[in-house]
This record gives sequence, structure tokens and C-alpha cells, in this order.
Amino acid sequence: MPLTPEQEAEIAALRDAPRPTLRPVADGMERHLHLVHPVLDHGFVRVVDYMGDDAAICQAARVSYGKGTKSVQTDEGLIRYLMRHWHSTPFEMCEIKLHVKLPVFVARQWIRHRTASVNEYSARYSILDREFYIPAPEALAAQSSVNNQGRGETLSDDEAQRVLGWLREDATQAYDHYESMISQEGQQGLARELARMNLPMNVYTQWYWKTNLHNLFNFIRLRADSHAQYEIRVYADAIGRITEDWVPFAWKAFADFRLGGTTLSARGVEVLKRRLAGEVVTQETSGMSKGEWREFEGVWG
Amino acid sequence: MPLTPEQEAEIAALRDAPRPTLRPVADGMERHLHLVHPVLDHGFVRVVDYMGDDAAICQAARVSYGKGTKSVQTDEGLIRYLMRHWHSTPFEMCEIKLHVKLPVFVARQWIRHRTASVNEYSARYSILDREFYIPAPEALAAQSSVNNQGRGETLSDDEAQRVLGWLREDATQAYDHYESMISQEGQQGLARELARMNLPMNVYTQWYWKTNLHNLFNFIRLRADSHAQYEIRVYADAIGRITEDWVPFAWKAFADFRLGGTTLSARGVEVLKRRLAGEVVTQETSGMSKGEWREFEGVWG
Amino acid sequence: MPLTPEQEAEIAALRDAPRPTLRPVADGMERHLHLVHPVLDHGFVRVVDYMGDDAAICQAARVSYGKGTKSVQTDEGLIRYLMRHWHSTPFEMCEIKLHVKLPVFVARQWIRHRTASVNEYSARYSILDREFYIPAPEALAAQSSVNNQGRGETLSDDEAQRVLGWLREDATQAYDHYESMISQEGQQGLARELARMNLPMNVYTQWYWKTNLHNLFNFIRLRADSHAQYEIRVYADAIGRITEDWVPFAWKAFADFRLGGTTLSARGVEVLKRRLAGEVVTQETSGMSKGEWREFEGVWG
Amino acid sequence: MPLTPEQEAEIAALRDAPRPTLRPVADGMERHLHLVHPVLDHGFVRVVDYMGDDAAICQAARVSYGKGTKSVQTDEGLIRYLMRHWHSTPFEMCEIKLHVKLPVFVARQWIRHRTASVNEYSARYSILDREFYIPAPEALAAQSSVNNQGRGETLSDDEAQRVLGWLREDATQAYDHYESMISQEGQQGLARELARMNLPMNVYTQWYWKTNLHNLFNFIRLRADSHAQYEIRVYADAIGRITEDWVPFAWKAFADFRLGGTTLSARGVEVLKRRLAGEVVTQETSGMSKGEWREFEGVWG
Repeated sequence: MPLTPEQEAEIAALRDAPRPTLRPVADGMERHLHLVHPVLDHGFVRVVDYMGDDAAICQAARVSYGKGTKSVQTDEGLIRYLMRHWHSTPFEMCEIKLHVKLPVFVARQWIRHRTASVNEYSARYSILDREFYIPAPEALAAQSSVNNQGRGETLSDDEAQRVLGWLREDATQAYDHYESMISQEGQQGLARELARMNLPMNVYTQWYWKTNLHNLFNFIRLRADSHAQYEIRVYADAIGRITEDWVPFAWKAFADFRLGGTTLSARGVEVLKRRLAGEVVTQETSGMSKGEWREFEGVWG
Repeated sequence: MPLTPEQEAEIAALRDAPRPTLRPVADGMERHLHLVHPVLDHGFVRVVDYMGDDAAICQAARVSYGKGTKSVQTDEGLIRYLMRHWHSTPFEMCEIKLHVKLPVFVARQWIRHRTASVNEYSARYSILDREFYIPAPEALAAQSSVNNQGRGETLSDDEAQRVLGWLREDATQAYDHYESMISQEGQQGLARELARMNLPMNVYTQWYWKTNLHNLFNFIRLRADSHAQYEIRVYADAIGRITEDWVPFAWKAFADFRLGGTTLSARGVEVLKRRLAGEVVTQETSGMSKGEWREFEGVWG
Repeated sequence: MPLTPEQEAEIAALRDAPRPTLRPVADGMERHLHLVHPVLDHGFVRVVDYMGDDAAICQAARVSYGKGTKSVQTDEGLIRYLMRHWHSTPFEMCEIKLHVKLPVFVARQWIRHRTASVNEYSARYSILDREFYIPAPEALAAQSSVNNQGRGETLSDDEAQRVLGWLREDATQAYDHYESMISQEGQQGLARELARMNLPMNVYTQWYWKTNLHNLFNFIRLRADSHAQYEIRVYADAIGRITEDWVPFAWKAFADFRLGGTTLSARGVEVLKRRLAGEVVTQETSGMSKGEWREFEGVWG
Repeated sequence: MPLTPEQEAEIAALRDAPRPTLRPVADGMERHLHLVHPVLDHGFVRVVDYMGDDAAICQAARVSYGKGTKSVQTDEGLIRYLMRHWHSTPFEMCEIKLHVKLPVFVARQWIRHRTASVNEYSARYSILDREFYIPAPEALAAQSSVNNQGRGETLSDDEAQRVLGWLREDATQAYDHYESMISQEGQQGLARELARMNLPMNVYTQWYWKTNLHNLFNFIRLRADSHAQYEIRVYADAIGRITEDWVPFAWKAFADFRLGGTTLSARGVEVLKRRLAGEVVTQETSGMSKGEWREFEGVWG
């Protein structure tokens, strides 16, 4: 359970008090505001605030005085045009602010996205909770033998249980010692900023994270990708579903041109043209390396 | 007059349709939304959207579940603490989006602030209006004789009239030729992206500009400064007045610690300590250069 | 002629004094250092400094202790892999610093690339030179009738001469008045920061511009594109040729995967697969808009 | 010992092969290149590359053609002027690239500085070494009773030994299990990206980190501060000593205006002026909060 009853009550209070505003309102997003979307065993994502909607993207692209929309159809066409031509600044005109609870090793990947604002719970100032990510058995996979930085098959039951035992045991012991170190009963009590270093990287932390739609799309494209680590992908997927409700036209264009699309190298274009002309092209005659060819075949067969 | 009746009607329509939201609402800012604040002879600033308020700064600093406020007093104290200790990320949690109309030479200074999103009216795609910044006579000043990049005394009436004449004449002629170049009557018509190069830098442009509160404060600190060029200062001042209504606590802290405060070098601290101890310190005995001493005396007498 | 004899002598002096360094040295780039590459009628690009080479990209990707190269072949393969998978941070490990002279309207497009450092010649502090971009007649094109923000056919001789006449006449008059305004003979002399607003946007300015290789590639991809305005494209092309000599492997990968490659939407992938399977697909059956189809056919016939 | 003999040999090879360059060379920095500066028990900082020197700052500020220096004295004065007036872009014209080995909990603070390029050793791809930060007994301090996020007195011997015992024991056990999890002897072997989550945050990681001088100064100002955690402060101090040799004028200006200087609020200025006029001001009559007054007295007595 990610939330205490007090926290649930605090959040619920925020959902009970709609107020009038003259700003653009995205109805699909209002339904997500202050709603806790659980992710992994103790984590969550919740939307704390947002700015803009599909129309705001068009308004900025047109630098318009009013709503700037001629018709809904025109708006969707414009958004597709902007996405297709890498005109990214209008998408920067929408902003999202999330409250996220996540394991530290996921946070370390997440923070690589630099164009965002972050306020993290301070373990120098506060005491971390006894909450650790313990994977579901089916999420325990072996090192991949083809991809040097990925996962392969799921572990056998026996091996999985052994791993889970160690994860639980080490987390428990590390947290017990963490508590003993900072305790001020009968001793001075170690500074929190030092004691935290004893905790393993599956301990949960939380932060407020704010970014614009353009950078959010970059985050989703990289982190919802099949090559991303499962534990960050589930966050990216959850945020993706929220974004789809928030800016449906922008999401559709993104899904078509980025998520579902592909990038071809000059060589790739040439190989496809030869194929379209009826030629049978092999890796040897393609001019591609084995790795490139494997990826190329992955898309084109 | 910066706006046509049609544009005024479009903007007015936006002010007539409040809608409910679950987001934080800043009452002081709602009053500014879609209101055109005139600046210079044809320019303006208007707030198109915003995110967050004073409480949102505290909420992020505390990574809190709910409103996270114990009391209004505590919030103000926390904001002052954050400002004093250069904890800038909580201020990044507020965002503002402005529609600005401004002369090109002002836009060229403004754009130096890189941490912002911009969509400018495209003179490749559209035709610029016949609107040029012509300074009021009292804004026409001579090159400063002490500060190499500033203004000194106001020009005499005669000289001012001569300057204004040239500005008007050259703008008129340049725009006439601009129109003639792009005209498609009896000729092909030059591409707009080329014709625009004939226009002087006091022509007006406009853009949507979006930034967070931390970077907005940086903008205001540098551009509302007495050393900034008058023509950008009036924009920074107008935005400052809006910001004061938006986030009153953050503004007060900013005004106290940044705008009204001062930075002392190690030498400056030492000189003040010697003065406090009763010593009379001169430039010669201060260890400061003449320029530094002049600035030091400007604050401390 | 972009340079005075004094400036040429100053630059030449920099080429005469090689000094020993323990840093990585890119031989192909050393040949470009402090060499003035002319662009347009008065502009130029010259490399003032650089950091890193192809090997530095690999070294960072491997976080290696020494040179970190097993073989030249491995390095090229790694660089292609990084480019293909959008691993952009290793490319950020190379840096370039350029001195560029360019018309103001080009500078206004250029500055949209925010992840760079810029120091521009100050027209508040200094007096601008009497140098304006006057296009070659063959560069004078009409507004495109298919692309709303591009150029179409070259202007007829008559029309071109008319345009050139206006450009020359207005620039001359504007600069004459600029000089008269700031003159301190027999008058106070208008502040430079004000007088500059009378100059048209084809006046030349100059700046130091520094960015990393990843962002440089973004710049080149967007500005060397056929949709970019000719006047910035020639700068991007010149920088591209320099970059090719600097980091030949990275350039080849960039040319293959970005410049020469193409991006397909999910619909585009599907259409190509149908074509590969022998189906004849038209715009109507493709699910694409007319604009998308036109661009798709531009690549695939 | 932070390095193996092989790594030392690899690095030493880099110091043995000076090559000629036409770029600016900073002699003080050449002496640091590829030199391993030990920090904490297993960490280090070493300069891998750099760009620019004091003269490069001035050259950019002047947008000059050649060296742009009139005299060494003028350069120092210009640099002090730029620092005093927060003209930060010329300092961005210098760049540094470091190879750093550091504990993960330090890396997590460090990465908050977003305007930098980072390539970190991948624990998805590679196996982390059995190296953990174990503080020296004198670095083990109790939670501060005045500052909520700092350290107070050093722990007693007994308590320190207890803490060190736990840190060693838990790190050993966690690493033993990490090895057992990923082992492929007699089992599938857990994916590395999962096994790493069992390691505590005092495990060492390493990265290449590249930033410009302006942002490096920000890093040092915040992280070499007495309020920063000791374990990151020692890195900031080590980098500070390197920077002093690299750009001696810029460092002196930075030390005077930022490190050794202080910022006064409007209230602070007013209180000092009253004191200079002979008045005795107390917290009650100062208008400052208790916290502000304590900090004010910390500087001014």
C-alpha cells in the first residue's frame, strides 16, 4: 500500500474543491488530478498540476490572439504537421507536474532527463520509510545472452525464491541498522545524511517532477521502449496513459510518428528501395553490420 | 493602439468563460489573465496561462501529499529561507506563459535568456505589420560618458526632433519597399523570408514566451536593473507587477534578497568591518579598483 | 572582404605558434583552426577552439581509464551503435567554439538553438560596421506557391534589380542616419543602444558561439535541411564540412542515420509493408493526409 | 587504492605523449591532465580534457579577432568586472571534462547540477566492483541539533565502531549476494540491472562529467560550502584547487566575489547602515527572523 490513510485524506481533500479559472482546462486531465496511480509494489504516479491542452499547442504555433482555432480538424492537422517536421517548441507550451514514488535505482535513470525540475524528499533532513521494491517473481529475469544490457528468460522458481530471499533479508537488515544508527536512545545518533548510505538502492524515494510536453514525449519514447528496464517502463507507461487523456491529438501524432514509427538510415532507405524493386537483399549485400541488419529485419522481416 | 477591434474581441471572449478546475488557483493572477498591459508605443504583455502559486512552492519543497501548508506564516518563512539559501528548484515549480509584442532589438536582448520556450510570429510565413517603435522624445538620450554601454542626458529638443524624423522616415521608406518587394501585382513577388531583411530593428514582432518562476526572477533581476536598456526595462517592470500579484510571498522575498539587496565581495566585507570598527577607509586603502570603489560607494556612501 | 589586414594579421599570428598539449588532438581539425571560411558576401566562420575527437566519444561511452580503444574498427562500430540508438550523451563530450560573422536576420534564427553559449558583439557598447548582406541576384527568389514559408522560382532580372536597388538604397540611408545620430560633432550624440534600432536586419553582426557535438548535429540537421532558409543553410554547410574533418566517424554515422536517413510514421511503415507485399497504395488508401503523402512520395516515389 | 596497476599504466601512457596544437593552452592545467587526485577512501578526480583559459574569457567578452589582450593587467580587470556584474556567458567559454569515481549517494547529489554532460559506468552492462565508502572514524558525526540537515559533534569511539561494523558487514553481505545472484554457475544468473538494486548507496560508481566554467563555479559555490555534505565537499575542494591552476584570474575573482563574499538583503543593508551610523541594532529591531538574524550575526558579529 503506497499511502497512509492520512495521506489519502489529504489528497482526497484536493479533489473536493473545484475552483473557477480563466485558464485553458483539459477535461481529460482534470479527471487524473490528485489521483494516485499505483506502480510497482509501493510506488505511484499522480498529477499535481498541468498547463495547456491540444489547443494551446496550436495557439502558440500560430501566435494567436484568441483561441486561435478554426476547427478541431485543422488543429489535429496542424499538430501532426508540427510533430512530423520536428517543430518542437509548440509542444513545450504544455507543462505537467507529477508526484512520483519510485525506487532509488529507477530514480537514478529517470534523473538523466535533464530538462525538468525536481524536488526530491531529503534523506539528509528526514527519515526514509521502510519500503523496498521486491520484484514479483515473474519480473525476475536472467541476464540476456543477445543484448548485453537487458534481460532474457524468467528465472526458475527455485532461483527466483533464492533471489527474493536475499533481497528481503538484506533490505531488512540494512534498514534495521539504519534505524539503529540514527537512534538517539542511549547514544548520540548518526547524522541522517550518513546513515542513508547503508540502504540498498531498491529503497523507495519520492519527488515532484515537472517538465514540458516535448521533453515528456522524449522521456516516454526512451523509457517506454522495449529496451528500457522494466521497472522504469511501467512508470513511463502509466504517464503515457495519462498523457493520452490530457492531449489526445498530440498523443496520437506522437504515437504515430515516434512510438509506432521507425527511423531509417540512408543505407536502410536504399535497401528498402532495392526490395521494392524486387531485389533480394541479404546482410552481406546490404552494407549493414550484423547488429544493424538484425534490427532492420526486426522491423521489415 | 496595439490591438485591432477583432483581436480585442477574441481576447475578451477568453475572459468571459471561467471553468472549474482542480488545480491550484492564484486569485491575484486570474485577474491578469488575458488582460493586455500596454508597453511602449505599440507593445504589450498579456498573461495567457500560469501554473502554481506560493503554496505550490512550499508543497514542492516539502514533497508533500496534500496542500502541505501548516499556516500562511510558515509558508512565508519557508519561502524566505529558500530564497536566502539559493534553493532554486521549488521556484521552478511555478510557470508563466506570456504573449508579448515587442520591437525586434528588444527581442534580441530578451532571447538571451535561454531557459524558456518561445514561439515567435514567423516573418517567413506571414507579413509583418507596419508598426515601429518610435521613442517618446524624453526617452531619447545621449551616449553616457561614464558608462560605456548606457545612456546619459536627454537630447535637446532640436536634436531629438532630428532623430525622430530620421527614424520615422527610414521606417516608412523601408516598409514601403518591403511591401513593394513582396507584392505579387505585376511581378513575381520576393519571398517574405528575404524581404523582411529590409526592415529596421525597431519593427514590432510578437511571441509566446513561457518560463518558470526561478528563471523569470533572473530575467527581472537583470532586465529591471537600472543598467538595463530602458526599452526592455519597461517590459520587465510590467511583468514584475504581474508577478507580485501572482506569488506575493515569493515576490516579497525576491524584492528583499535580490532586487533590494546587494552582493559584497570578500574585500567589501572587510572594508565594511573596518568601517564598523571606526576606521576611515579610502579607495587607496580599500584594495579595490576605482570602478569597484565607485560602485561600493554608490551603495554605502 | 570580411577582414581588415589588421584582423588577418591577428588571426595569422594564432596559426604560427603551435604548443604542446597532453589533450586529445584531432589532426583534421587543427588544419581548420583560426582559418577564415567565407560565407555569403561579408560573413565567415572560423574555428577558435575545440575539445575531443572520435576517440573521446568512445572513451566516454566506455568510461575508460586510458584511450579506451581496442581498434579503429571497433570505435567506428560503437559510434554507429550510439547514433542509431539515440545515445546522445557521448557526443556531448566533444565541443566546438566558433567565431561567426552573419546578418542579424540569420542570427535571429540561429539563436533559437538554446543549448549553446554565445557572446555577441555589443551594439550598445560599440559601433556597428557599414556592412549589409546584399544577396546575389540568383539568390533572389519569389515566395513559394506550394510551401508557405519557402522560396520558389528565381526572380526575373528586372525584378531582381529593383529589389537590389531598394536593399542597397535603404541600407545606405539607414546607415548614414545611424552615423549622424551617434555623431558627437556639434550635438550630444544619440546613445548607441538607441541608434542601432534604425539599422535593417541585413546588417552584419558577429559572435563567439560554443556548443557540443550533439547539439551541433541538431543544428546542422535542421539548418542544412532543404527547408531551411538559404542564408543560414550556407553557414550550416560550412560548419558541416569542418565537422567532417574533425570527427570523421561521427560525421559518417550522422550522415547515414540523420542527414541521409528518413523517419517513417507507423502509417508509413504499414504502407511500405503493403507495397513490399505487392499492393499498389494510393493517398486515398494510405490513411495519410495530402501533405503527408506528398512528403512520403518525395522519398519513396 | 583507487586504481589497478593496469589502469595506472593506461593513464600514465596518456601523460607521455605531448602533441602540438594551435589551441589556447593553459600551462597550469596541463600539469593536472591525466593525474589521479585521490578523494575519500576509493574515489578520485582526474582531468581528462579542457578548453580555454583566462584569455579565452576575455577574447569572448570582446568578440575579438586575435588574442584580444592588451595586457595581463587589463585581462584581470575585465574578468573581475564580468564576475562582479554577473556577466556569465564569457565564463561559459571554458570547458572541463573530468573522470570521477565517487559513492552513489554523492553521485545522487552531484547530478542535481543539470547543465553538464555525464556518461556513467553502466551497471546494466557491467559488474560493479566490491568497493564501498567506509568513512574515517573522525568523519562520523551525529545529527546536528541546530541545523536540521547537517552534522553535529563527532561520534564517541564506541558508537563510531558500532556504526563502522554495520557499514562493513552490510556492504560485505550485500555484495556477496550480488555476486551470487548474477553468477551463472549452476543457475541462470539474475540480470545485472536487477541485481544491482541490492547494493547499498555507499558503493562506488564512476563517470565522465563535462561542464563549462560558469556552471563549474556554481557547483563549487554550492558544494564547497560549509553547509554541503562533507563527502561531496571534498570533491568540490579538489576540483577547486585544479580550477585555481587552470584559470587563476577567474578563480581569484570567483573567490573574492562569490566564495568569500556575502549577499545582503535590503533589510541587511539597512541594518548595516544603521550600525555604521552608530545605532545598536538587535534582532527585535532588525525586522529579521531569528534564523536570518543568526546568519547575519554569523558574518557581521
